[in-house]
Amino acid sequence: MKHLLTAADLSREDATAILDDADRFREALLGREVKKLPTLRGRTIITMFYENSTRTRVSFEVAGKWMSADVINVSASGSSVAKGESLRDTALTLRTAGADALIIRHPASGAAQQLAAWTVDEHGGPSIINAGDGTHEHPTQALLDALTIRQRLGTIDGKRVVIVGDVLHSRVARSNVALLHTLGAEVVLVAPPTLLPVGVGGWPVSVSHDIDAELPLADAVLMLRVQAERMNGGFFPSSREYSVRYGLSEKRQAQLADHAVVLHPGPMLRGMEIAYSVADSPQSAVLQQVSNGVHVRMAVLFHLLVGTEQEAISA
Amino acid sequence: MKHLLTAADLSREDATAILDDADRFREALLGREVKKLPTLRGRTIITMFYENSTRTRVSFEVAGKWMSADVINVSASGSSVAKGESLRDTALTLRTAGADALIIRHPASGAAQQLAAWTVDEHGGPSIINAGDGTHEHPTQALLDALTIRQRLGTIDGKRVVIVGDVLHSRVARSNVALLHTLGAEVVLVAPPTLLPVGVGGWPVSVSHDIDAELPLADAVLMLRVQAERMNGGFFPSSREYSVRYGLSEKRQAQLADHAVVLHPGPMLRGMEIAYSVADSPQSAVLQQVSNGVHVRMAVLFHLLVGTEQEAISA
Amino acid sequence: MKHLLTAADLSREDATAILDDADRFREALLGREVKKLPTLRGRTIITMFYENSTRTRVSFEVAGKWMSADVINVSASGSSVAKGESLRDTALTLRTAGADALIIRHPASGAAQQLAAWTVDEHGGPSIINAGDGTHEHPTQALLDALTIRQRLGTIDGKRVVIVGDVLHSRVARSNVALLHTLGAEVVLVAPPTLLPVGVGGWPVSVSHDIDAELPLADAVLMLRVQAERMNGGFFPSSREYSVRYGLSEKRQAQLADHAVVLHPGPMLRGMEIAYSVADSPQSAVLQQVSNGVHVRMAVLFHLLVGTEQEAISA
Repeated sequence: MKHLLTAADLSREDATAILDDADRFREALLGREVKKLPTLRGRTIITMFYENSTRTRVSFEVAGKWMSADVINVSASGSSVAKGESLRDTALTLRTAGADALIIRHPASGAAQQLAAWTVDEHGGPSIINAGDGTHEHPTQALLDALTIRQRLGTIDGKRVVIVGDVLHSRVARSNVALLHTLGAEVVLVAPPTLLPVGVGGWPVSVSHDIDAELPLADAVLMLRVQAERMNGGFFPSSREYSVRYGLSEKRQAQLADHAVVLHPGPMLRGMEIAYSVADSPQSAVLQQVSNGVHVRMAVLFHLLVGTEQEAISA
Repeated sequence: MKHLLTAADLSREDATAILDDADRFREALLGREVKKLPTLRGRTIITMFYENSTRTRVSFEVAGKWMSADVINVSASGSSVAKGESLRDTALTLRTAGADALIIRHPASGAAQQLAAWTVDEHGGPSIINAGDGTHEHPTQALLDALTIRQRLGTIDGKRVVIVGDVLHSRVARSNVALLHTLGAEVVLVAPPTLLPVGVGGWPVSVSHDIDAELPLADAVLMLRVQAERMNGGFFPSSREYSVRYGLSEKRQAQLADHAVVLHPGPMLRGMEIAYSVADSPQSAVLQQVSNGVHVRMAVLFHLLVGTEQEAISA
Repeated sequence: MKHLLTAADLSREDATAILDDADRFREALLGREVKKLPTLRGRTIITMFYENSTRTRVSFEVAGKWMSADVINVSASGSSVAKGESLRDTALTLRTAGADALIIRHPASGAAQQLAAWTVDEHGGPSIINAGDGTHEHPTQALLDALTIRQRLGTIDGKRVVIVGDVLHSRVARSNVALLHTLGAEVVLVAPPTLLPVGVGGWPVSVSHDIDAELPLADAVLMLRVQAERMNGGFFPSSREYSVRYGLSEKRQAQLADHAVVLHPGPMLRGMEIAYSVADSPQSAVLQQVSNGVHVRMAVLFHLLVGTEQEAISA
């Protein structure tokens, strides 16, 4: 693997190898005071975040630093974007300044793919990691969600995963649908008709508008964030209406099977997408997702920059 | 010690141990070209700065890096705050992403205390360091001020420290009053009545409105910054008026005893709070404070993350 | 050498030594997976960027990190500038907090020189590197341009370098004129009369307004960025007009000698200053400039912080 651009690109073997390595990194670091592996010493990782983010940028930065890489942050504010430079020229500059990996978050769908095409050189160019491109994909989020489901349920194959909320604007939903399908899960989307993409008929999912009918059958429920910043029209009447129809309340949680796990990619709008008590209940895996995020990103960086042959964990 | 939330929490023994270690770090690094101790290798320190700052953030970052920690910066701009995430969820996310210490500056008084309550987990959670919360406390500032006074005067016990200016909005004043009292100093506050807190009667201080009566008796004078950004009313008629009544002019400096030391937490508004020449005079310790800031923060990180038993300085 | 404030300060010997070391760093790192030299371990480098920049800040950060220095970034946004602190006090604070080198970009011409004067102390103070001050100088840019020309043409001595565009606002032009003259090149400025400085008559250059007459004679062409953010008047009728008269089009490129090299400091406004195809042609050295930027900055940091006597490259 050279890049991680979409979850749709990942074969079952690749995805499973990354998840296995993530678990291995987790175990290797468990309870260690000194969280530092020499794996990526002397490698340069540049994050290019053109949208606000805390969790994803910090997660990648922790992952890189725990593997001894040099991590350099570039954000749209404070950059040459204001001087009119094209994304292509910025990317070529960062590649040529020595980046072994470029991690990009960008409001435009397809930005990561473009970057990979632009930055290829005679040595192959840097590895590109898509950390979220517009409404398209966010593959490391799907990997950490899959790892969390696998840890909670033992396997993903044959499990029923219900994804609830703003599917239309959600790169998390797209990446999860692709990866969960690859890994053998059955995926159900629950959303208001206005928040479903036009082409959803071609996705390997079933669609429902009735969350209460779906919850009792779910092995995992993935609540999406309402992407208010991507909405310029009235996609639903009000926050209250959305919450009543699609929010995961305590009452709805009671319909879930005991073994079912609740996920949310964060940041959560508690009280709207998910009740406070549900987010903090043992059935919720939101913090396990955060923890898995670091280990999944270590595994991804390892796969892209070192390969799968070598021994991942030493020192 | 698990956290450093307030100077009021510090016992005389704890505070003295931190000051002693700060002096030890200073001596250990003195004149060294290679300023790098292995003390915190593999520890992850995340700074969460929700207010502008250069000196405090850089001071902590230098302290962490000189001890070989991984330091990751999060600021309010460019973070998920804009997406509506609560401070609690951000803190839980950063804890779970691997932070051993969270250093927080926040406009809300009590934010650090909240963070400590929120982030506790079965292993104890990360250490929380209050780097300034609203108008409440800024304990590492008080520690570096105390260290500076101790270095200049030999001891703090029994010394008379005059704190001048905007006490009402000053977390620096609150932390200094608490710590200086604990360490045996006599503290005098000099401020316009509008810039004194209502509850000041219960503080272990004496209060004066006449700076010229107090200066000749002072062993140390701590000039506060006028926190214009926290004032929404007319607390004093004009900058000029403030300067005339409470500024440390050359003429006022002449009233000080020879041994008396002048401190200012910075950033200074020269010409208003303190005259240019006074700030740059040998009696001023403003740069000694900055230097002590790094060593005090090294000592605090050491006490919180390693403990007092082990040998602080090696390599 | 203590500071790098202007290209005009560099003797032919100093400049050549830096270029030689830059080439040496390049060769030492060539094809290495682990790009990490121990040269500056335990040294603290603080970047102070008061203007937006990606390439220069990242280039310095990569250079510092590849030499194992601790690099700390300070930008105007998020700093104490908003609280009214003077640049002098900020600089003294950063010096005293432990900076071995301060790298400054500032909108005011002369800021770096000021910083060097302000921060000197009994041990000499930190090394100051000018990363661009107003319309004055940007010496590391001139060094990387010179290195690129030397690599392409074998030597700089006796070569004819044509600098085209907004000379008036360009610190890149000023630094290049000084350094290229020192290194023996013949420099020609081509610009509209409104974009030439008043004092250009005293520069060691010839001036032309006719790009088409100059291109056939050039060994190197340096296209400048139009600094729209520094223009508050109408310096030229329109972008289109500028492009037609001073842009490096494909047709103009055809007038160049085969051996001639095209440079641009970036960020490029393609289609205006330089045609897309020209920027990406083999004759263009824009990416070679970026790559040389890192090695030149490594060499500069090495010269300032370690000196020229010691062995630069080990491990």
